[in-house]
Amino acid sequence: MEKKTLLTECPDNMGLISKITNICHKHQLNIINNKEYVDNAKNHFFMRTELEGYFNDETLLADLDRALPTGSKRRIISSERKKVVIMVTKEAHCLGDILVKTFDGSLDIEIAAVVGNYDKLQNLTEKFDVPFHHVSHEGLTREQHETQLLAAVQQYSPNYVVLAKYMRILTPNFVAQFPHKIINIHHSFLPAFIGAKPYQQAFDRGVKIIGATAHFVTNDLDEGQIITQNVIPVDHTFSAEEMAKSGRDVEKSVLSKALGLVVDDRVFVHGNRTVIL
Amino acid sequence: MEKKTLLTECPDNMGLISKITNICHKHQLNIINNKEYVDNAKNHFFMRTELEGYFNDETLLADLDRALPTGSKRRIISSERKKVVIMVTKEAHCLGDILVKTFDGSLDIEIAAVVGNYDKLQNLTEKFDVPFHHVSHEGLTREQHETQLLAAVQQYSPNYVVLAKYMRILTPNFVAQFPHKIINIHHSFLPAFIGAKPYQQAFDRGVKIIGATAHFVTNDLDEGQIITQNVIPVDHTFSAEEMAKSGRDVEKSVLSKALGLVVDDRVFVHGNRTVIL
Amino acid sequence: MEKKTLLTECPDNMGLISKITNICHKHQLNIINNKEYVDNAKNHFFMRTELEGYFNDETLLADLDRALPTGSKRRIISSERKKVVIMVTKEAHCLGDILVKTFDGSLDIEIAAVVGNYDKLQNLTEKFDVPFHHVSHEGLTREQHETQLLAAVQQYSPNYVVLAKYMRILTPNFVAQFPHKIINIHHSFLPAFIGAKPYQQAFDRGVKIIGATAHFVTNDLDEGQIITQNVIPVDHTFSAEEMAKSGRDVEKSVLSKALGLVVDDRVFVHGNRTVIL
Amino acid sequence: MEKKTLLTECPDNMGLISKITNICHKHQLNIINNKEYVDNAKNHFFMRTELEGYFNDETLLADLDRALPTGSKRRIISSERKKVVIMVTKEAHCLGDILVKTFDGSLDIEIAAVVGNYDKLQNLTEKFDVPFHHVSHEGLTREQHETQLLAAVQQYSPNYVVLAKYMRILTPNFVAQFPHKIINIHHSFLPAFIGAKPYQQAFDRGVKIIGATAHFVTNDLDEGQIITQNVIPVDHTFSAEEMAKSGRDVEKSVLSKALGLVVDDRVFVHGNRTVIL
Repeated sequence: MEKKTLLTECPDNMGLISKITNICHKHQLNIINNKEYVDNAKNHFFMRTELEGYFNDETLLADLDRALPTGSKRRIISSERKKVVIMVTKEAHCLGDILVKTFDGSLDIEIAAVVGNYDKLQNLTEKFDVPFHHVSHEGLTREQHETQLLAAVQQYSPNYVVLAKYMRILTPNFVAQFPHKIINIHHSFLPAFIGAKPYQQAFDRGVKIIGATAHFVTNDLDEGQIITQNVIPVDHTFSAEEMAKSGRDVEKSVLSKALGLVVDDRVFVHGNRTVIL
Repeated sequence: MEKKTLLTECPDNMGLISKITNICHKHQLNIINNKEYVDNAKNHFFMRTELEGYFNDETLLADLDRALPTGSKRRIISSERKKVVIMVTKEAHCLGDILVKTFDGSLDIEIAAVVGNYDKLQNLTEKFDVPFHHVSHEGLTREQHETQLLAAVQQYSPNYVVLAKYMRILTPNFVAQFPHKIINIHHSFLPAFIGAKPYQQAFDRGVKIIGATAHFVTNDLDEGQIITQNVIPVDHTFSAEEMAKSGRDVEKSVLSKALGLVVDDRVFVHGNRTVIL
Repeated sequence: MEKKTLLTECPDNMGLISKITNICHKHQLNIINNKEYVDNAKNHFFMRTELEGYFNDETLLADLDRALPTGSKRRIISSERKKVVIMVTKEAHCLGDILVKTFDGSLDIEIAAVVGNYDKLQNLTEKFDVPFHHVSHEGLTREQHETQLLAAVQQYSPNYVVLAKYMRILTPNFVAQFPHKIINIHHSFLPAFIGAKPYQQAFDRGVKIIGATAHFVTNDLDEGQIITQNVIPVDHTFSAEEMAKSGRDVEKSVLSKALGLVVDDRVFVHGNRTVIL
Repeated sequence: MEKKTLLTECPDNMGLISKITNICHKHQLNIINNKEYVDNAKNHFFMRTELEGYFNDETLLADLDRALPTGSKRRIISSERKKVVIMVTKEAHCLGDILVKTFDGSLDIEIAAVVGNYDKLQNLTEKFDVPFHHVSHEGLTREQHETQLLAAVQQYSPNYVVLAKYMRILTPNFVAQFPHKIINIHHSFLPAFIGAKPYQQAFDRGVKIIGATAHFVTNDLDEGQIITQNVIPVDHTFSAEEMAKSGRDVEKSVLSKALGLVVDDRVFVHGNRTVIL
């Protein structure tokens, strides 16, 4: 007996749930968990089905294709652990949280490598027996640097790339290699405070709550699909530096949570939004 | 075209979702919204299905009964507004919130009447053209008082009874008239601080967070199934009175939220827990 | 014996707390509560002192003026209830919350009047024996309308004006009459989603948290000093309308909380930020 | 120039703030930050004053003693980093968080050693070059085990002992060695779910929110003074195991936050409550 996850996405139609579950039923697959969502405004159907049994992926997909409307997407995902490459600059908290959570089993991933444009986190990374690649941007054009980055990342053929406070903007060329596969943590409650120095912006605006946002990376800076967000209260006694310090805990928990959802195959990208089942 | 909600609950079995949705499909009913949950530990299945179409309740139920396993419960609930009687003592905030939310349409209920053991909230109630019954407990035995209360409440044949800071304990006899139909707000984060004066208890214990709990009323004091809870932070500067004052906002929002879920037919009682779909 | 509040604000200096408390001490005034804050970056000192005793305001202020540095502001505020005029359009929840909280004593204010550009909330207002002025904007230029609004509001000489979902922009001329005296609720977590239809904007951006912001009104739209903010989680199942519905509870509690802080003389305006003591 | 913190605690009296700040002023010490609190019910005064300047601790204390009422406690604390010993059993998340936060400077402490009754976390500990002592309880009486634990801990003369999911109860003898110096994390929102298996208890009770509590350890199980608490929402889909998994993030952030407050000399113990300035 195996466990797999079936992800289905298609134009909405009467009877879709019964069609899909009928097919699973016919294949003697037990539905352990099922969630579906219909975007009524866009008439679009999403379903995530955790199945258990003896799978014949080919005939299952063929049966689904016969039953589902044109324009459907469906994938059967094995329960294999996902491979992740983490990109960092100098700040340790997000990387540290992912390393410790992977170490203690809270995050069920394989950290293939960490790639940093500084070497400051090499020591921390190697404590956990994860290879660290220092790819300095100094003296290089953006293109040269990204060529090296890309080589460092792609040698691991990762399922996902995580920007754990990687503080440089990636070019469309880099992003295009990993469509909906790069997860970034932005240290503000997007769409407030897009761009550089969000805590300073938050301080200047006098907000009473700060936050963090994990999102997929697209070519528009800080405009990718939001996966998770969280916030904490602040008050007038916080300097921009103290906001940044307090914000670290939110950043790391938001990023780890988003990563957990993504590697658990719970996140559908739907236009500029995410559907999380 | 009508809208109705189908609630199904039964021992879990392979293919239940497909069986139920097939039947709806066959009846030409469109599924607007569907949520299900399986308690794997207890092997129990719950499903809430919002349907739209032309209903023949009798044949639909008959079809379901043929398809579902023994021990199933299923109900088709019309989208008619629920009738609610509210019981109060002296505090205005929960009653006020329900009155205003019903007035502005946020709560889709009919407040049939308010029954108070003091007359302090008569004035507020009548501002909203709702009948108020003053049923004083003074000079009466508990049994005599409850007989009068029961008469006052039952004349309206309410779907639900809401204890909006009604500060007297109800006897098993009263509770038995409204099984899983009485919703209470307890001014603590249950099961902490059961019983009287929870804010004083919270103060004495030095907690840093206080809360409120909306639950169904059973015969065990503050032990009924929890529907919703929420909390707010406090600190050493709060006296017990200030906790009580700050707690009012949580109490009222928790109670109103629970009431909204209940009248929307989203709450299943499952042993001493609730399943909310 | 009386209770009063002393608010002091001045360039920071060594020994300010001891100077001010010495003077209170000398005047035989007991300090019930004292909070101070120093903005070290801007070298500015703020202090709020709740005093009890027999006051001679004139000599107390004279003593303070002798002791404090040039550029100091200090005010002695009696514990008299503040007079508030509320401006509304059509939505009942914020107004309803303020009316009920004032009715039950949670908000210690006098609601002098409600002014609406529609008459939809007249009925609700008058339930609480508060005068309602309907000042329609139809057929009037903005200037004509504001002249009438201003007359309606100013006849009550309010301490504060509350925009409880008043959905029209006020001109600089109106705002200038009430510097730091107008409190608005914006239905987003500012500075995200400035301007019109913030819930639609939030939906379109796919955020996972929505919020509300109470702020002073200045001449820049939604740019006034923030007093309080709060948020609630949402997910992909929320339409823009459902966000708006869920947001109402946050809006009303944020506005009522801000109003409570302001009428309690806890809010200092400090550049484009607030200091809350 | 040095920075130190003055902690004062005494029966309340008119003029205390001015007396203390006068003395600091006289000693040419600049007040960077000052917070005080009066428990009016118990007539008790607390003050925390961050000072900067050239200190003569002896004469400063002598001056304070002359000025303060009988029964006062006052301490001048240097800004030296505190030494901490961490006790663990098998769970990595709290220890991991403290290690990473100390590594990246978010927690300004020296981790002198980790002591575990299992050796499971030795590997993690030594990654960060911190000595690990395995003090197994197997085959030992409770007294014998604690004698060994005590020896392992006391050789480091720690300022604080942190129980980072140390899952055995400490005897009064052990606790007596470290009065108000042992900080524990309890994996529930105390006082709900005291004792063993709180997540199972929470599941059985059907709560909708779970939490964690950091508190000082006294001789009454889970009854010590609460320092910080936090919560997260759960719903019917959570098994007890999933609650435990989700709870880890709260546990670790609550414990790290409490530890940060304690080593920053912000926490006064006041009967069975804490005052945090």
